[in-house]
Amino acid sequence: MTTTTARGRATRLRLVEAAARLMHVNGVAATSVDDVLEAAGAGKSQFYHAFASKNDLVAAVLEFQAASGEKEQAALFRAHPGWEGIRAWLDAVVASQQRARYAGGCPIGSMAAEMADRDPALRRRLKTAFQRKRNAVHRHLAALQDAGSLRGDADVDALATFVMATLQGGLLLGSTYKDGAPLRHAVEAAWAHLLSFRP
Amino acid sequence: MTTTTARGRATRLRLVEAAARLMHVNGVAATSVDDVLEAAGAGKSQFYHAFASKNDLVAAVLEFQAASGEKEQAALFRAHPGWEGIRAWLDAVVASQQRARYAGGCPIGSMAAEMADRDPALRRRLKTAFQRKRNAVHRHLAALQDAGSLRGDADVDALATFVMATLQGGLLLGSTYKDGAPLRHAVEAAWAHLLSFRP
Repeated sequence: MTTTTARGRATRLRLVEAAARLMHVNGVAATSVDDVLEAAGAGKSQFYHAFASKNDLVAAVLEFQAASGEKEQAALFRAHPGWEGIRAWLDAVVASQQRARYAGGCPIGSMAAEMADRDPALRRRLKTAFQRKRNAVHRHLAALQDAGSLRGDADVDALATFVMATLQGGLLLGSTYKDGAPLRHAVEAAWAHLLSFRP
Repeated sequence: MTTTTARGRATRLRLVEAAARLMHVNGVAATSVDDVLEAAGAGKSQFYHAFASKNDLVAAVLEFQAASGEKEQAALFRAHPGWEGIRAWLDAVVASQQRARYAGGCPIGSMAAEMADRDPALRRRLKTAFQRKRNAVHRHLAALQDAGSLRGDADVDALATFVMATLQGGLLLGSTYKDGAPLRHAVEAAWAHLLSFRP
């Protein structure tokens, strides 16, 4: 289903934003369509005008989270070329976990942990969302390599995947500990490992 | 409530094992007491003889997962002293994800991702479970340091936390990708970073 009017698009966005907030904290399974309607101040007919089903809403929430993460990261990489871009991104992840008071973790990571084994179609979308993020890091590292700031024998794909994994794990431990230390330790070690590939 | 007879203890274990399997794949929220009873072939009165509530069962599942993980890891560290112990542990995590066909991830990590923000009492138990694992790694690294195989200026607490985070993230990406590459990349980078602290 598509919503073509400006009002329809605004309602759709309000529903997606409300669902994104609820699903980030409570998870997908524990967030009902009724919870989303209540939080967004919308009615059932508005919902089913915008979405075919709850699954359709979950896919829209994932796309919303992936797109906003991608936009922030691209802005950081544009503003800070070279190694500073990687450092700025790592610092931004640490700062954002602190701002969220160690709640929720990475919205895509949390959704993946809950849903990857339970919904094959959503799992494929989650994989694509992780890969988009990985590709952005990959491109930035490849540019460092082209510029001679990263050794030619460094496997940029492996490094990008490693940094993503370390951040995901640090966010998960941090939201379990309710403490910034795990992510800080994870980030500093990942940074040191990346820098070990400077020529 | 305590179960004092041998039969009562056997029933309790059967319920915990069935719940552990279901919760690992489907999550805590999506696993009902009825699901567990059906999988374990037990009745409601047996359940409420062994557990005060579903929360009580979840705590028992976490303890069961933490204790079995701890036992396996301690056996590996005993069998492989020195750096080989760390390598054997990392290889065991990779092999176990492969055996599980990239389903479920780490049972403690999956439960943490789902529940840490939703149940403060369970969050504290999850933190303790992570810390027990971290402490085992910490002790092994501290023994390496005492033996002069790890530099004196290495922060073993930070390193242990970093390796745990990297494994958790690699398991999460792997169960989203249904592929062993993310965890392998994460493990090789973590291993290289640890080895960079050899004297």
